[in-house]
Amino acid sequence: MLEQTRIADTGKIRIVIIGGGFGGIELAKSLAGAEVQVVLIDKQNHHTFQPLLYQVSTAGLEADSIVYPFRKIFDKQDNFYFRLAEVQSVDTTTQIVETSIGLLRYDYLVIATGATTNYYGNEQIQKHATPIKNIEDALSLRNTILSNFEKALQIDDEEQLNSLMDYVIVGGGPTGVEVAGALSELRKHVFPKDYKELDFVKMDIHLIQSGPKLLNGMSDEASVKAQKFLEDFGVKIWFDRKVVSYDGYTVTLDSGEKLISRTMIWAAGVAGAPIEGIRKESIVRGNRFKVDTYNRVEGYDNIFAIGDIAAMVTEENPQGHPMMAQPAMQQGRLLGKNLQNIIVSKPLKPFEYSDKGSMATVGRNHAVADLKVMKKEYRTQGLIAWFIWMFIHLISVIGFKNRFFVLMNWMWSYFSYDKGIRLIIGKKKENIPVEAVTQKAVV
Amino acid sequence: MLEQTRIADTGKIRIVIIGGGFGGIELAKSLAGAEVQVVLIDKQNHHTFQPLLYQVSTAGLEADSIVYPFRKIFDKQDNFYFRLAEVQSVDTTTQIVETSIGLLRYDYLVIATGATTNYYGNEQIQKHATPIKNIEDALSLRNTILSNFEKALQIDDEEQLNSLMDYVIVGGGPTGVEVAGALSELRKHVFPKDYKELDFVKMDIHLIQSGPKLLNGMSDEASVKAQKFLEDFGVKIWFDRKVVSYDGYTVTLDSGEKLISRTMIWAAGVAGAPIEGIRKESIVRGNRFKVDTYNRVEGYDNIFAIGDIAAMVTEENPQGHPMMAQPAMQQGRLLGKNLQNIIVSKPLKPFEYSDKGSMATVGRNHAVADLKVMKKEYRTQGLIAWFIWMFIHLISVIGFKNRFFVLMNWMWSYFSYDKGIRLIIGKKKENIPVEAVTQKAVV
Repeated sequence: MLEQTRIADTGKIRIVIIGGGFGGIELAKSLAGAEVQVVLIDKQNHHTFQPLLYQVSTAGLEADSIVYPFRKIFDKQDNFYFRLAEVQSVDTTTQIVETSIGLLRYDYLVIATGATTNYYGNEQIQKHATPIKNIEDALSLRNTILSNFEKALQIDDEEQLNSLMDYVIVGGGPTGVEVAGALSELRKHVFPKDYKELDFVKMDIHLIQSGPKLLNGMSDEASVKAQKFLEDFGVKIWFDRKVVSYDGYTVTLDSGEKLISRTMIWAAGVAGAPIEGIRKESIVRGNRFKVDTYNRVEGYDNIFAIGDIAAMVTEENPQGHPMMAQPAMQQGRLLGKNLQNIIVSKPLKPFEYSDKGSMATVGRNHAVADLKVMKKEYRTQGLIAWFIWMFIHLISVIGFKNRFFVLMNWMWSYFSYDKGIRLIIGKKKENIPVEAVTQKAVV
Repeated sequence: MLEQTRIADTGKIRIVIIGGGFGGIELAKSLAGAEVQVVLIDKQNHHTFQPLLYQVSTAGLEADSIVYPFRKIFDKQDNFYFRLAEVQSVDTTTQIVETSIGLLRYDYLVIATGATTNYYGNEQIQKHATPIKNIEDALSLRNTILSNFEKALQIDDEEQLNSLMDYVIVGGGPTGVEVAGALSELRKHVFPKDYKELDFVKMDIHLIQSGPKLLNGMSDEASVKAQKFLEDFGVKIWFDRKVVSYDGYTVTLDSGEKLISRTMIWAAGVAGAPIEGIRKESIVRGNRFKVDTYNRVEGYDNIFAIGDIAAMVTEENPQGHPMMAQPAMQQGRLLGKNLQNIIVSKPLKPFEYSDKGSMATVGRNHAVADLKVMKKEYRTQGLIAWFIWMFIHLISVIGFKNRFFVLMNWMWSYFSYDKGIRLIIGKKKENIPVEAVTQKAVV
């Protein structure tokens, strides 16, 4: 079994990283120059800058501007190897990862598989709702939105028209708030120019939140302001409601209320994406692997988990760290150093999360931000928060060229009140074919 | 049947244009301000700048930079209506177009459906070859090329490796030459950086041409120089050969020679895409509609055809005009004026083709151009031709923003020797799964 080797055996200790999200990338980078072999496995050939996915969905950015090929990120890092593969399972005894392209030996394994959309076990919702978790989701949503309006042009029936023009967004976290804001901007500035034959007074944007406030985890000022901004933009917010069923047409809330929409955008939660072969006892709430303060998965010496998939349960963080980019990046960076410490038998440094705060944008000129700088909190809402949001996201995008193209797109959109990428290319979600009520009428 | 109307009856004469390629767009534009109702139907919601599709396939340009939403092109033209629909047939007696979204009445009908890839009736080739005729083809080819190299990393067997690393391009016209040039550029400057584990000496690029020279229809200087440029770049050209079969792995030529490649790019010809309901007697060689000098389809008063689908057979053009952007655009523009003349019973102006020449680019710094300016011919090959090619294509791309992004991408690629869009997003063509020879070996 061992006679063939397609990743060169460099004679160095091999660290296999599963997943090239924020955590995986930072870890691989921080191993640059180390006397190890770094092997990154991912299902995609590119890193995705997830915080801007919603802008791809809403025609504000090209997909290509927010993804970046792994091979290009690491083209100068000699100890780095990439394989496009899906992981099937891990054999922790023989230290072998089974993947779609073969078996891969490891000395140290780092699980950085991130999170997937959480439908809380509701298969009907999973089937009909539209997630925004990866670039193909985002493109599919863009195609779906634009196709809906194209179809709406042929419809007379009021309910059918609503089903195509109205949107239901589930989840009042940053993604839900940002999508609702972006859709309301499109409704105001863009769609009426494109679809002069449609009456956009009829386009409703619903945001469903399970609790009594938006942006849980942010300050009350941020929540209240985000709500005010969205309401000013005409978004209808439904607090303390959960979706109990969705058949691709009718959204039923636990309050008994019903909404009609062919497109329900699901931003109601994520859960870890654990892999087969790791002991089940180490999986805790939210499908995450329980790790110690060195990100070591409970029960193993040479297996680590970072980012969304890792639950570092401490007294300050009884739920683990928030499933966001910052903890993942910081854990990745530290683990890179710690792995090098392990190899030379130096003491390890425990992880300490440096919370830099969080923010969300709510359409043109509006955002909310709770920032932490040198352990001091700064809260701001409105235009200044919006500029801070843009600046921080811009510098975080990988690659000078992508950063430049994102900036150019933003400036273009800002000054032209336009979103240029209104293209239907590739697949879209079609829950139920539009009733052919008008199919045979001469138009 | 007539009681419902979804495209408002403006009381004006309705001109229905099927197809928003170069011809359809120019026609619709030249009807701006006219006392008519213009209805454009297309399968896509965007115009595609086909001459740059090959750059999308070869990771040089974002798809979004060379396509442009119809609704945006015409957002200031009040008499313009767009419908996203596929045409099923035409009833020329009742003057109704049957489409995927319903029936559409016309007073004047203009067929501008362009051309499709011509496989000359070979279904096996059609099934396995990769065309580059629309934006989804182009993206699929990009995904396929990149996936091939990712797979090649796991392969030891020499023939299997060749099947993934080698490319066969069929057709020595502009598209074939341009793809071959772009692939050889990638082989030289880009892929070796990405795939350090592969030996790119093993990557062969074959170009198959049925006749004894490249770029038929261009000057001998252009043909000879294009051949020299490609050969200098290491492209293997096979003259006077035709492909007789391709099973997704072995390309068999009519000379009996065989080449191995999992990706055979088909640029060997196009044919018109006529629509049902138009009298068969009007279809001539190449599946085109025979038109008079006013682009009127033979046998009809109120049905016209322009561009690739139209064969205006004259003494100078016994085959009709070349299937290229220029004749389509010129016919579209003139027909717009002539339709207005018809309506006010003014005399019509016959079409006269103003040939501006043609050109093809052959990788970095190299192109060939036969230009006609004020009926004088200018021929140039090499760097100057390359700059002319870039300039003309750049100003021809629709929309200031797209033009700017194309220019930025080109400048970036030129100075960095890089092609940034090396992303696998969406579907790819997988003819035969790579033999799992190494599937179970530990790597």
